[in-house]
Amino acid sequence: MRQITITADKKYLLIPVGNVKGWTIPAESIQYLSIYQNGSLVEEYEVCLDASPRCWSCLYLERYAGETLELRLEGGDESLIELLEVSDTLKDADTLYREPMRPLAHITPMHGFMNDPNGLFYLNGKYHCFAQLNPYGLGVGNTHWMHMVSSDLMHWQELPYALLPDETGRMYSGCGAVDLQNTSGLGKDGIPPVFLFYTPAGSKSRWSRGKYFEIAAAVSTDGGMHFEKYAQNPIVQHIAYMNRDPKVVWDDQNQNWVMVIFLDNDRYMFLYSDNLLHWEQGETIRIRGSAECPDLFNLPIDNDMTQRKWVLWGSTDNYMIGHFEGRHFVPETDVIEGPTHRIDSAYSLEARSTGGYAAQTFANLPNGRVIQISWIRTVVSQGPFSSCLSIPNELRLVSTEQGPRLTVKPAAEVKDLRECSYSFVGRGLEEFERIPREYLGEAMDMTFKFSMKPDKLIAFSVRGVLIVYDPKIERLLLPVGAYKLALKDDTFELRVVTDRCSVELYADDGKFNLTLATVPDPTDISILPVLLDPGIGIDFEVHKLKSMWE
Amino acid sequence: MRQITITADKKYLLIPVGNVKGWTIPAESIQYLSIYQNGSLVEEYEVCLDASPRCWSCLYLERYAGETLELRLEGGDESLIELLEVSDTLKDADTLYREPMRPLAHITPMHGFMNDPNGLFYLNGKYHCFAQLNPYGLGVGNTHWMHMVSSDLMHWQELPYALLPDETGRMYSGCGAVDLQNTSGLGKDGIPPVFLFYTPAGSKSRWSRGKYFEIAAAVSTDGGMHFEKYAQNPIVQHIAYMNRDPKVVWDDQNQNWVMVIFLDNDRYMFLYSDNLLHWEQGETIRIRGSAECPDLFNLPIDNDMTQRKWVLWGSTDNYMIGHFEGRHFVPETDVIEGPTHRIDSAYSLEARSTGGYAAQTFANLPNGRVIQISWIRTVVSQGPFSSCLSIPNELRLVSTEQGPRLTVKPAAEVKDLRECSYSFVGRGLEEFERIPREYLGEAMDMTFKFSMKPDKLIAFSVRGVLIVYDPKIERLLLPVGAYKLALKDDTFELRVVTDRCSVELYADDGKFNLTLATVPDPTDISILPVLLDPGIGIDFEVHKLKSMWE
Repeated sequence: MRQITITADKKYLLIPVGNVKGWTIPAESIQYLSIYQNGSLVEEYEVCLDASPRCWSCLYLERYAGETLELRLEGGDESLIELLEVSDTLKDADTLYREPMRPLAHITPMHGFMNDPNGLFYLNGKYHCFAQLNPYGLGVGNTHWMHMVSSDLMHWQELPYALLPDETGRMYSGCGAVDLQNTSGLGKDGIPPVFLFYTPAGSKSRWSRGKYFEIAAAVSTDGGMHFEKYAQNPIVQHIAYMNRDPKVVWDDQNQNWVMVIFLDNDRYMFLYSDNLLHWEQGETIRIRGSAECPDLFNLPIDNDMTQRKWVLWGSTDNYMIGHFEGRHFVPETDVIEGPTHRIDSAYSLEARSTGGYAAQTFANLPNGRVIQISWIRTVVSQGPFSSCLSIPNELRLVSTEQGPRLTVKPAAEVKDLRECSYSFVGRGLEEFERIPREYLGEAMDMTFKFSMKPDKLIAFSVRGVLIVYDPKIERLLLPVGAYKLALKDDTFELRVVTDRCSVELYADDGKFNLTLATVPDPTDISILPVLLDPGIGIDFEVHKLKSMWE
Repeated sequence: MRQITITADKKYLLIPVGNVKGWTIPAESIQYLSIYQNGSLVEEYEVCLDASPRCWSCLYLERYAGETLELRLEGGDESLIELLEVSDTLKDADTLYREPMRPLAHITPMHGFMNDPNGLFYLNGKYHCFAQLNPYGLGVGNTHWMHMVSSDLMHWQELPYALLPDETGRMYSGCGAVDLQNTSGLGKDGIPPVFLFYTPAGSKSRWSRGKYFEIAAAVSTDGGMHFEKYAQNPIVQHIAYMNRDPKVVWDDQNQNWVMVIFLDNDRYMFLYSDNLLHWEQGETIRIRGSAECPDLFNLPIDNDMTQRKWVLWGSTDNYMIGHFEGRHFVPETDVIEGPTHRIDSAYSLEARSTGGYAAQTFANLPNGRVIQISWIRTVVSQGPFSSCLSIPNELRLVSTEQGPRLTVKPAAEVKDLRECSYSFVGRGLEEFERIPREYLGEAMDMTFKFSMKPDKLIAFSVRGVLIVYDPKIERLLLPVGAYKLALKDDTFELRVVTDRCSVELYADDGKFNLTLATVPDPTDISILPVLLDPGIGIDFEVHKLKSMWE
């Protein structure tokens, strides 16, 4: 163990972060960095300090207000503790948000590894997005909740971390809830309190050894800008295994709060409350093929407000539709395979699963909109961060021959990032080569409409990703799999949103949505015909997207 | 201008190298670093010094033997000259050749940007490979010849740079020639002299302003380990435009040396010599669709030594077959589209051209073998180097219905890198998912043999690259294009060699060879069925390749 003393008289403690391959930090490279204040442990992280770091991250010191702190490093080369710096300036202040691999139209953290979106809510003209974050490593660990705000859903600003790990564990996933009626009684000055419900992941850190997963809350009395962990945590004690990922919604019809949490395998549990603080356990329910991260939201069928349904959604996007009878969820469907099709592989989850995962909808959105953001599981192997979140998608319920089904489309707000647009109508595939280069970019929002007969085959590539559609077998072929999609009235439509670390696809009028967690070659901004076939007519538009960070 | 003085009493001058996007270094980021010895300019480079460099490169100081040197920096932030360090140890000595993006089975430079292979020859049990190199930038510039040697064609060791830019220009491409009969008279002690023929690229550097492209030679009298530029350079004075890229071979039948150089557009010129030093101009010849970097080699048709032909090959692999009548090349074919199919795009050469370019064969190989290495134009956006060379390919001439044609197959030596192997026979595509993970890796050599009828469609992916073969239209669909390849006896065979920065494909018994300059996701080592079709039987083998650097 090696120790240094610092004075917390500047904004940041700067921490060098070593590189990692994939998103698992090898056990042998982990060191423990502990922070002591007046002899008490106040923070402890797994770090991998490096004299030639991939990036420099920051620990916010403002809460220590000039006090003296002792820092201790255990494991590996402990002399590296001397690299830590107290500073008012970030090491990468000059390049931050302008890095070559930073996605332009997708949420990423300033520093570190991100996963599930958490705590999404809207209040006072601001969208709030939180997410699982390891600020001090480029793989999973040290799970904080990062916090970002936006006025328009597309331009985001990162705030200091909202939830820090503590002796109860890492801060695993959860949701946000705006207590408009102050049912909790925790509001002040007429401002509705905002809740974050999170999972203290006991035993997932050295500090929380021997503890269990529980459900806890943090409360904001300033409209969602700052959160304090609730003094009487946990609000739901340990139930089973690694129970986690609370999603809390207000059931207006029954005038109570509903929480759904993951229990184990594919089992979820409902809980009910009048005041967000005291919860009674309800029924358990299985979502076949899912685990973790439930979402729960209310939607009308075909915009008919008399036909409102609840949708219970699992991490992989399998879902079921139902309603509440008092404090009881009544499914009206079996489990439906979701629009975000996911395929597992025998030997590698990452290799074949699609990008979108652990999606979550915003609480308290105006006009009953249901907007969802998911985690895109892209590993980024350079720059100060890894992974990103999806673009915001708007969900609707539409009736089909099989019954009501969810549709997923990019939220209208995505248009706000359009920089310039180019289109053509009724041309052949060779027309892709005539698109002036200034309309192409790393981030593009494209719509393809192919008019063709079933004996034709479409093959084209976007930023090096081959996309093939064969109407004879009704399959869209992508590097991750083949998806059944029919030609309709001799037409096949596809929307593709590319960025530096992802390719998102939408088809079948929103009933198909698939995300490729891929990092295209940064120099390849091409849209290319692969197979020129004179019998195919194309309507096409491309919108080059600008950076949300500018 | 800012100046420092150093003592060259250690091995290296260490130079920090800033990052670059693509392979063009923006003009505004270029600074001039000049080295003066006793008041005379001895070296001058375009650099982009960076306090947070992507890598540290090295300038070899040993030739200055402890003397005092003045270093001058002009342009940009000139205070960055203080970053330069004299050292006996490379900055990245701990990680060199073990970087996450370093190809395992492909030649890469220690530091800097590589392009064309140059000067390939074999002598005394050693293969020598040179290549265009910018040691001090991650895009084109400062063109040196790097030098590597190997005993087995697969494990390579980099030696100090063989040719440094000088007042005649950057050191552009050329070839190697072993003067076994000492026709030049420059041999010493019975050791055959080895020649490098190169292109002093006048006016391509500040130092060579106003000069023209010429052809020059450097000579080794120690069996190819060290080269001295020939005192009477140039050996061929400027002829036209940017004439360049000499390829020199011994014509055994006519007992003379033949040189072919690029002139302009698609024009090439033959020159002839008895002694490698004095050259007479011969005819010019056009290779339609080519420019730069000719190759010239001798092969028997169908291994019949009485049917030897010369092959003249252009940079893009278009070629023609002919013979020499004395000092005159007589084409026997029109220009043939080569096995390395290349497609240009209207707006981006990089986007669509295939990886392999500027291929060159070894001089003086035993047993009349013709082995060729090309440049793979992959931009690598992290680590101390960018771009790589192809695996060695063995070329043959075979007779076909259309006349003699070249075939390209991986040289047998590629097998030497096999770490472990897995295979199956007569299974369905779903069998790919059952390959144990330990047989998969970032570098793999795979052979697929599909037994199928024309009404079937194959779709699978390798490390995220979708590969589709449709026998009905006789097309192999790849992200860069569609290639005509017929089903033969209800069988389609494909060999695929992947590595960290490339995917090389071989089909049609060697008559098809295509390289994708792509950087697959490092965490994706998958081989996946995309479309499961019960009517397809597969014979498959995969050989995981180990690192040539271990």
